[in-house]
Amino acid sequence: MGELAGIDLGGTNIKFGLFSGKGDLLKQWSVSTDLREEGAFLWRQIADEIKNNAEPSELEGIGLGIPGPVLPDGFVESCVNLHLRNFNPAEKMREYFPGMKIRAANDANVAALGEQWKGAGQGHRNLAMVTLGTGVGGSVIQEGKIIDGTNGLGGEFGHVQINAEETEICNCGGKGCLDQAASASGIVRYAGKFLRESSQASVLRGKEIFTAKDVLEAARNQDRIAEKTVEYCMNFLAKVLAMVSYVVDPEVFIIGGGVSNAGDYLIEMIQKLYEPYITLSQKKAKILRASLGNNAGIYGAARLVLREEDEPPVPEQV
Amino acid sequence: MGELAGIDLGGTNIKFGLFSGKGDLLKQWSVSTDLREEGAFLWRQIADEIKNNAEPSELEGIGLGIPGPVLPDGFVESCVNLHLRNFNPAEKMREYFPGMKIRAANDANVAALGEQWKGAGQGHRNLAMVTLGTGVGGSVIQEGKIIDGTNGLGGEFGHVQINAEETEICNCGGKGCLDQAASASGIVRYAGKFLRESSQASVLRGKEIFTAKDVLEAARNQDRIAEKTVEYCMNFLAKVLAMVSYVVDPEVFIIGGGVSNAGDYLIEMIQKLYEPYITLSQKKAKILRASLGNNAGIYGAARLVLREEDEPPVPEQV
Repeated sequence: MGELAGIDLGGTNIKFGLFSGKGDLLKQWSVSTDLREEGAFLWRQIADEIKNNAEPSELEGIGLGIPGPVLPDGFVESCVNLHLRNFNPAEKMREYFPGMKIRAANDANVAALGEQWKGAGQGHRNLAMVTLGTGVGGSVIQEGKIIDGTNGLGGEFGHVQINAEETEICNCGGKGCLDQAASASGIVRYAGKFLRESSQASVLRGKEIFTAKDVLEAARNQDRIAEKTVEYCMNFLAKVLAMVSYVVDPEVFIIGGGVSNAGDYLIEMIQKLYEPYITLSQKKAKILRASLGNNAGIYGAARLVLREEDEPPVPEQV
Repeated sequence: MGELAGIDLGGTNIKFGLFSGKGDLLKQWSVSTDLREEGAFLWRQIADEIKNNAEPSELEGIGLGIPGPVLPDGFVESCVNLHLRNFNPAEKMREYFPGMKIRAANDANVAALGEQWKGAGQGHRNLAMVTLGTGVGGSVIQEGKIIDGTNGLGGEFGHVQINAEETEICNCGGKGCLDQAASASGIVRYAGKFLRESSQASVLRGKEIFTAKDVLEAARNQDRIAEKTVEYCMNFLAKVLAMVSYVVDPEVFIIGGGVSNAGDYLIEMIQKLYEPYITLSQKKAKILRASLGNNAGIYGAARLVLREEDEPPVPEQV
């Protein structure tokens, strides 16, 4: 087994990781994404970086995490952050690496694969990941494989319409999406709402603007308005996780993204809110915090290269 | 490829089907389930029926649908309707058919597999099925395989807590489960509620007792209270189907069970209610009515026997 290159392609930066076949990170680096002339230089840029940092004869394959939906045949119709349309990333790369094993998948799904391979999800073949950042992303892995779904909706938990009390419209056009409550911006918005609706003292009142991090920190310090906000927002997440359990029943949920930096306080709260919604089984899925941070993408991209036969054997199932 | 025996084991009857390797139903029959002495005669009964109706030398394998959760290793901890505990159905049968290919799975999942193989789901590798009967059951099939889940919760859509207005407690201990609204008993209960809350005329008022079938028939005949009931109940189903789409994104949903006998009227209503909840994709999953009725179980049980290598090739996916 040769070396693996894992690439996390973003609108601002491209992150690179060079791995041993077993998944040891040998080297990592990043460059600014070259988006000039509608990406005319982009694939050349990526290829040059790989060639300058890896020994091509040692390279087993290249994996790419793409910030947009990747269809089952590897085609990408639209990549908003890259301003690119209708391309096949693996084919683009193959021009520079003929005969090389090259694979591409959606970046959120790739991050989940990374967490499963070398992060919080190690040892679990069936898991779901939720990323709480500016928005809410998600991913489902079953028997070690990403579930992309027929139209690329697999794992898009952020747009489950779960909050019947929501008054605003989501970016997606829906109303009451999980994204509107459990994202960083959702937490800030609901804190503002609860501050306006009450005259209770809160450290948040002193600040002209505050972030989700401020709200989570205040909640951990038992600020009542902040606690109410975080519990309100995370209760919707807990409901959606329970629904995911009643669809694919993962062993563990992995919580990533900036909001998850609130740490054990938040993870324990989600676990506690989640469990009562699971009435059909005494055993409950465990909620875990993602452990690879921004590196999950390069790990998962490298993992894409490995084929079924490289995976540990699975007990035979129907 | 030899013949396949598909067995649907129920608390009252055992249904048998003998199939060609291609899935043509050659013969079907059923017998009363022998539950004497804690099932001491049950496996012998099943074996005798197979031996009396099939030529053992022609038989390729035996599949069993079991009315309870079947763990990945084939073990069944509890089977309430059969009053049986802690057994391995495939091992039990193997005593009578040494060396035979024998497989068992949960009966709801097996029915979905049957619909996929020879019913409404033909040609779809990724689907979800919902059975609207006395209760609400479900099943998820991805890449031709049932998703049982870690603790057997895979496809248990009936206990997603979706109705925040529900005042009663579900059998499962939860509140607001889909089962409480979209099952036959849920429809009857909500019709009663809407009748009490209104003085509007309705054909249902004349009846001392009425069934879900009566409510659905009245709704199809534009009885206002009945229409309100069916739309109210099916809207929760539509919301749950949308959630399933945001987890595994199936190509089609198959609706089975007694309630689905209401036919196109109901299926079209569910499709119409479902689509607006899918905001992230222009393409929406198609809602289909199950087509095998009570035979889905024997078809699916026979299908269990076929191995991966017998399945049509799938485009390579991550």
